[in-house]
Amino acid sequence: MKLYDYPGAPNPRRVKIFAAEKDIQLQLVMCDMRQRAHKTDEFLQKNPSGKIPVLELDDGRCIPESVAICRYLESIEPEPNLFGRDAFEQASIEARNRHIEHEFWREVGISWVHGPIVAQLGLVKTIPEAKAASDKNVANYYRRLDQELSQSAFIAGARFTIADITLLTGVDFASTLVGIPPDPSHSNLARWRAEVSDRPSVKSADALVPT
Amino acid sequence: MKLYDYPGAPNPRRVKIFAAEKDIQLQLVMCDMRQRAHKTDEFLQKNPSGKIPVLELDDGRCIPESVAICRYLESIEPEPNLFGRDAFEQASIEARNRHIEHEFWREVGISWVHGPIVAQLGLVKTIPEAKAASDKNVANYYRRLDQELSQSAFIAGARFTIADITLLTGVDFASTLVGIPPDPSHSNLARWRAEVSDRPSVKSADALVPT
Repeated sequence: MKLYDYPGAPNPRRVKIFAAEKDIQLQLVMCDMRQRAHKTDEFLQKNPSGKIPVLELDDGRCIPESVAICRYLESIEPEPNLFGRDAFEQASIEARNRHIEHEFWREVGISWVHGPIVAQLGLVKTIPEAKAASDKNVANYYRRLDQELSQSAFIAGARFTIADITLLTGVDFASTLVGIPPDPSHSNLARWRAEVSDRPSVKSADALVPT
Repeated sequence: MKLYDYPGAPNPRRVKIFAAEKDIQLQLVMCDMRQRAHKTDEFLQKNPSGKIPVLELDDGRCIPESVAICRYLESIEPEPNLFGRDAFEQASIEARNRHIEHEFWREVGISWVHGPIVAQLGLVKTIPEAKAASDKNVANYYRRLDQELSQSAFIAGARFTIADITLLTGVDFASTLVGIPPDPSHSNLARWRAEVSDRPSVKSADALVPT
């Protein structure tokens, strides 16, 4: 299976860590976003939304979108389980994962779109006021995460799940390219982040390079 | 099972339509958002994010978040299938559902947050420039949907799925409370919307009132 990827892009990184947890080998294919390779007619056939990651199966069928790809990988390789086992656990992990996306990633995304790197590209009109509001929401959410991680080892409870991958890739993206890292005083969040970053899956995924 | 609901709120509506498709009866409980009932300590025990819908099981356990609740309902009542059958179909429907959320609902949400009704409430500082940008993105997305619905009966292919519920509730919310309806010239989108709105599940869900 091929995974269309670009170095540093946070959403393909989610899939790479997920696949590494399950020891699934993916052939990484470079989709050069600087050259707008994700907006070519050929790529839009694979994903009409013009985004990465895309998983291309050996028969040529494509699955776009990071969580959809992870769900496919969970179906074909159920262990270790990362989406939950029974109906209630599956729903609880999904709720957690989606809340992190809606309440954290969404705000990080707004700060990114209205931040200096995107402004330099000149593709959209940036609104500094929108970035300021989202920066504040992100800071508030870090505080909430820190409190929650004082109560549990992982973000959706006692074991590592897809929600931890979603959060780690979001916090790392926010901290680096978006320039809004957690406050160092959030020691529970820092403890969780160090532990999760130290997992073999994260280290091996981050060492992979698309060709 | 109880579902915490508020009249006109689009996310509980998603769950009500989904449950009606499966003929699952839910006891609707009024969560009076005008009175900030979703932000009380008691409600935050059910959902720390302070949002509706929340599904409360008969044993008192709670599941927040509309799609997580729908997935739980699909687990306990698999037919009619709304999330996909095999691994590839499940991933494809999930990708479609999430793209509609990320590319359409997200923009509608920004237009709502920075629109006149929220401004009147005075809870957040509205940014008219952010609303203008999202209004434009929504108009562009309607054009794409219209083109796609010229090719297929439903939004994720040949049959009705959760992605149609996500899209219908988003288009209806955008058209009414947010004030950004589709252009009447989008005849394929209008055809799809009329057909989906006419389903018994939608009619019966919309007739339910929380008490």
